[in-house]
Amino acid sequence: MESDEPTGAQRGELAASLSSKYGVTIDVPPVPASSDLDLRKPRMAVPDSLASICSTDTHERAVHTYGRNFSDRVRAFNLQFPNPPDVVAYPRNEADVEALLDWCSGQGYAAIPCGGGSSVVGGIEPPDDYDGVVSIDLGGLDQVLEIDEVSRAARIQAGVYGPALEEQLRPHGFTLRHFPQSFEFSTLGGWIATRSGGHYATNQTHIDDFVESVRMVTPQGIWESRRLPGSGAGPSPDRMVLGSEGTLGIITEAWMRIQARPRFRASAAVTFPSFEQGAEAVRQIVQTKLWPANCRLLDPGEAADALGSDGTQAILVLGFESAELPQGEQMHQVIAIARDCGGSVGEEQIRIIDGSGEEARRPEAVGAWRNSFINAPYQRNASMGMGLVAETLETSITWDRWHAMDAAVRGALQDALDRVCGGGRVTCRFTHVYPDGPAPYFTFEGMGRPGAELEMHEEIKRAASDAVIAAGGTITHHHAVGRAHRPWYDQQRPDPFAAALRAAKSAVDPNWVLNPGILFDR
Amino acid sequence: MESDEPTGAQRGELAASLSSKYGVTIDVPPVPASSDLDLRKPRMAVPDSLASICSTDTHERAVHTYGRNFSDRVRAFNLQFPNPPDVVAYPRNEADVEALLDWCSGQGYAAIPCGGGSSVVGGIEPPDDYDGVVSIDLGGLDQVLEIDEVSRAARIQAGVYGPALEEQLRPHGFTLRHFPQSFEFSTLGGWIATRSGGHYATNQTHIDDFVESVRMVTPQGIWESRRLPGSGAGPSPDRMVLGSEGTLGIITEAWMRIQARPRFRASAAVTFPSFEQGAEAVRQIVQTKLWPANCRLLDPGEAADALGSDGTQAILVLGFESAELPQGEQMHQVIAIARDCGGSVGEEQIRIIDGSGEEARRPEAVGAWRNSFINAPYQRNASMGMGLVAETLETSITWDRWHAMDAAVRGALQDALDRVCGGGRVTCRFTHVYPDGPAPYFTFEGMGRPGAELEMHEEIKRAASDAVIAAGGTITHHHAVGRAHRPWYDQQRPDPFAAALRAAKSAVDPNWVLNPGILFDR
Repeated sequence: MESDEPTGAQRGELAASLSSKYGVTIDVPPVPASSDLDLRKPRMAVPDSLASICSTDTHERAVHTYGRNFSDRVRAFNLQFPNPPDVVAYPRNEADVEALLDWCSGQGYAAIPCGGGSSVVGGIEPPDDYDGVVSIDLGGLDQVLEIDEVSRAARIQAGVYGPALEEQLRPHGFTLRHFPQSFEFSTLGGWIATRSGGHYATNQTHIDDFVESVRMVTPQGIWESRRLPGSGAGPSPDRMVLGSEGTLGIITEAWMRIQARPRFRASAAVTFPSFEQGAEAVRQIVQTKLWPANCRLLDPGEAADALGSDGTQAILVLGFESAELPQGEQMHQVIAIARDCGGSVGEEQIRIIDGSGEEARRPEAVGAWRNSFINAPYQRNASMGMGLVAETLETSITWDRWHAMDAAVRGALQDALDRVCGGGRVTCRFTHVYPDGPAPYFTFEGMGRPGAELEMHEEIKRAASDAVIAAGGTITHHHAVGRAHRPWYDQQRPDPFAAALRAAKSAVDPNWVLNPGILFDR
Repeated sequence: MESDEPTGAQRGELAASLSSKYGVTIDVPPVPASSDLDLRKPRMAVPDSLASICSTDTHERAVHTYGRNFSDRVRAFNLQFPNPPDVVAYPRNEADVEALLDWCSGQGYAAIPCGGGSSVVGGIEPPDDYDGVVSIDLGGLDQVLEIDEVSRAARIQAGVYGPALEEQLRPHGFTLRHFPQSFEFSTLGGWIATRSGGHYATNQTHIDDFVESVRMVTPQGIWESRRLPGSGAGPSPDRMVLGSEGTLGIITEAWMRIQARPRFRASAAVTFPSFEQGAEAVRQIVQTKLWPANCRLLDPGEAADALGSDGTQAILVLGFESAELPQGEQMHQVIAIARDCGGSVGEEQIRIIDGSGEEARRPEAVGAWRNSFINAPYQRNASMGMGLVAETLETSITWDRWHAMDAAVRGALQDALDRVCGGGRVTCRFTHVYPDGPAPYFTFEGMGRPGAELEMHEEIKRAASDAVIAAGGTITHHHAVGRAHRPWYDQQRPDPFAAALRAAKSAVDPNWVLNPGILFDR
């Protein structure tokens, strides 16, 4: 919401705080006026039949040019929009989506499906080698169409944003419980297309696990799977859609597995003398298959940032939840494991909510962590123009190689920060954990030179990405590939699989109009 | 094992029992002598470089002609082998697999990967439109190569059979815990290629969930994914291999997620006045996310067959297991739900094993069910030649449509049995269950005419398959597609996905030599 965006006063405070933190003098640069925006003229005319759902408005086109990662925000702040979409389309229904795709496919215009536009990997950015680009904003497809209470599933349109989706499920006593950090700014279709990571830290970590069936418009017709709780009939059609990032079709709706709203909860925050000890506890916890809904481990630096702790201890934030059953027993079992591994938590810090329906106040550390997590997207824009270079990156790795990877990625980031920014800070947390390994999420920050942020950022991010791939990890656990991760994704992906995917794309999108340049080249 | 196969005396007893059951007189037909086998001559010569790993022996070729479903067993019993593979190859390592695939790809011979050959869907049967067919038996690749104890994962060769796999993990305290009904007769590679359903009745039901990475030989090179506990980098490469049924490549090894051996167990069998009441209990149990390892519901007929009960009550077999934690609490929570839904179980029938390491005797119903389940593959061959028509089929469906499907499939089967066999019997159980629906597994049996079993079987199976598809189900939850399910799989699969898969195949197998006719046509 606009009211949550940083005010001039907040920017002033931030500049002062960064000045003192980095020993430099930072002026608060003026925020460029969007009225100064001057975009390349649209390169094609919109056919009359589509005019009512298409816009060539400057502001709309600018908003649909970039996602929301560091370089996106820097470029947007500086009003650098050399390659905007020519047209932004707002389909009201699936027939509109089909008509738009027919137009693009017939003319060879790039068609970029856009949900909330919150990509942090350049996933909605136009290609520079197409004669026309249409950004197709699915925001008009925002309804929960059907709820199957007995199977706990709902048919939901792809363009609905997180809060509106939850609002429509709430009166029926249900929730999707998919709360990525971008929750407010992202849509169901975007989550599915990018294999979004969600609320649950264990067991069912990605949106993948909640997809019962998907309906997608392709230039070759409708791709719709059956509603099935499980199947073994050939490779899963849904699993080819999940992660396709708009390259195979435009998702219009999906049957999603939904949850009864939790009434029973248990939560706690456990401190550890080191990240390593916390990691050992986490490993043992997930290997017991107790499946806590929350199981986020913050390294000492991350804990200090998020919770205001003193920076000497790692913190493990734990939570269980259920609509049906008290969760105290599981919490005590997990706490016992954590204590065996050197964790500390006072009994009074373990909160058990008994299902009376009251949303009791969360324990302090848990609540602080949540606020920090949820508000992060707002805070990111405050420092624009001040020279700060800051970003996150995430991966996963098996436990046996985790320690080496942690050292390698931190080392690569610190070296690059030292070289590029003359110093900086690296922290890490686990966002999701599996019996065979964690999903580490790194945050880095350094003070660069105003005006040179893009190059400095790119050099640091590249060093980290190289380290992730060399250490055996994935270039992304849940942020997707987009344009930002392509060079490393290409290294990670098996070559015959790349050939198979490219061929699959050619079969459903013979003119290569769907989000070209993402995942593969022609 | 051969010693478990039916003896002449057992066949005599079975014939008498079937005669009395169906009111007919059944002679015990002689078992044809395999020395009478006379196969078409191999249509091509084996190159010298491959001679040491190839066989053209009649028995070997016959054994590799069919899987193990009803029509396979009838044809094999009758020595009907009109279209055997020309050559059976036994690669000793991955280099051999590559050399064999080069040969087939170069000459345009069909290459059929074969694990245990236990397919019940015609998955290893040669195509009839190729000039040469090589069955590639992976049985020589039977080693656990590496165990990562900290991540609980193992690198395992694809040709290892269930028991040999478990035997190699046991000394390290681990188990894969994948126990399909074909456990003794099937291999890891076969499980992966067919999305085998396994031990766990809830949560992680298919082999899919235990695959950390796969290595597969394709005509275009090695397809190997990274070892990752989770990833969001594009569509999952493993999920395209899972269910590919030998059409994209030959799986040579995989990193599999393994389990610590359970020490704590809890089990019980709950009776219900009806299948419907049992189903309601199961629905509530899985929706609480307690994830019992065993949660198999048998309808009254199935319960009578498996457990010798009186045929008036459904039985729910429940089990929890853990290497780390006592399971009594979960069992009591599940029992409470079952009782609320009308289930009965005496306290003395609830067995809790405390982790002392002793494998205490299972409660009677649970043990009987296991024996019945495990021994089923042996019993199937006893009735060959007597005219009995018997088979199983399985699907999945969301809870809201389960009741209608159950009625439709039973109705279709009973009608077909009445029409074709003048009567017969249909039973059902749930083998796996999900929060959004069950996986029903139907068994039918009727007395046909000796010599006409194939046609009679086909008509009955077709009626059931039509009913499954019309009711919205999947043609297979875990038996795979093969040749038997193709017509219905083609109806179920989204057309653009079919086009994508075909194109993917052409990209990695340009000469279409890998298991042609399975999943798609050229």
